[in-house]
Amino acid sequence: MAVIGGIFGKSHRRDSEYIDLAEEVGGKEETEPMMYVKVAELQNYEDLKDFTDYVYNGDILILDTAQISSDDLELERITNELKRVINDIGGDIAGLGRNLLIVTPAGIKVNRRKIRGSF
Amino acid sequence: MAVIGGIFGKSHRRDSEYIDLAEEVGGKEETEPMMYVKVAELQNYEDLKDFTDYVYNGDILILDTAQISSDDLELERITNELKRVINDIGGDIAGLGRNLLIVTPAGIKVNRRKIRGSF
Repeated sequence: MAVIGGIFGKSHRRDSEYIDLAEEVGGKEETEPMMYVKVAELQNYEDLKDFTDYVYNGDILILDTAQISSDDLELERITNELKRVINDIGGDIAGLGRNLLIVTPAGIKVNRRKIRGSF
Repeated sequence: MAVIGGIFGKSHRRDSEYIDLAEEVGGKEETEPMMYVKVAELQNYEDLKDFTDYVYNGDILILDTAQISSDDLELERITNELKRVINDIGGDIAGLGRNLLIVTPAGIKVNRRKIRGSF
């Protein structure tokens, strides 16, 4: 599993594949978040239904397709289904790197041009 | 620049580093998006100010830190500044892979546990 790893070894948590950079700043939540960014690892087409439910529910999905990256046919089925979903709800989809797809719910668009600093 | 590339060669656009999977489904926007997901490539600490403005303005920022990945000191300065920003606005930050940081505005949290399908 190549995509999720550690940036800084010292803050890497064993019980999760995430570096929780916000551990120290967590205590500030007075209200329930209005939305989540969820990261999911796609292993086959059948997983997709569970994951698209997040987007239907209004969350942003970052889909890691590394495990099926060699299967062009499966990838095409998946992107066709995802296109159908975002067409249905008015969301958006874009590739990020070789193995990540950003899938957004209604009202959220992915800015397709990568921004570089002016310095 | 390693992180942003093409998933499917055939749909890769030359004028942008993004695969626009939503080209065919674009015409449905009746309303202005309420939020953007923006991807930015960080080259040094001085770039950060421009990028954090997106988060202050309510957009989600995906920051590609590949170009400074070998500079631990610079990375630490940057994550400290980002923590300060999200503490300030009530957002969230999490690492995604070796070289990506997700930075969210108020009301949006990153689900830290990577989801796997049940199949």
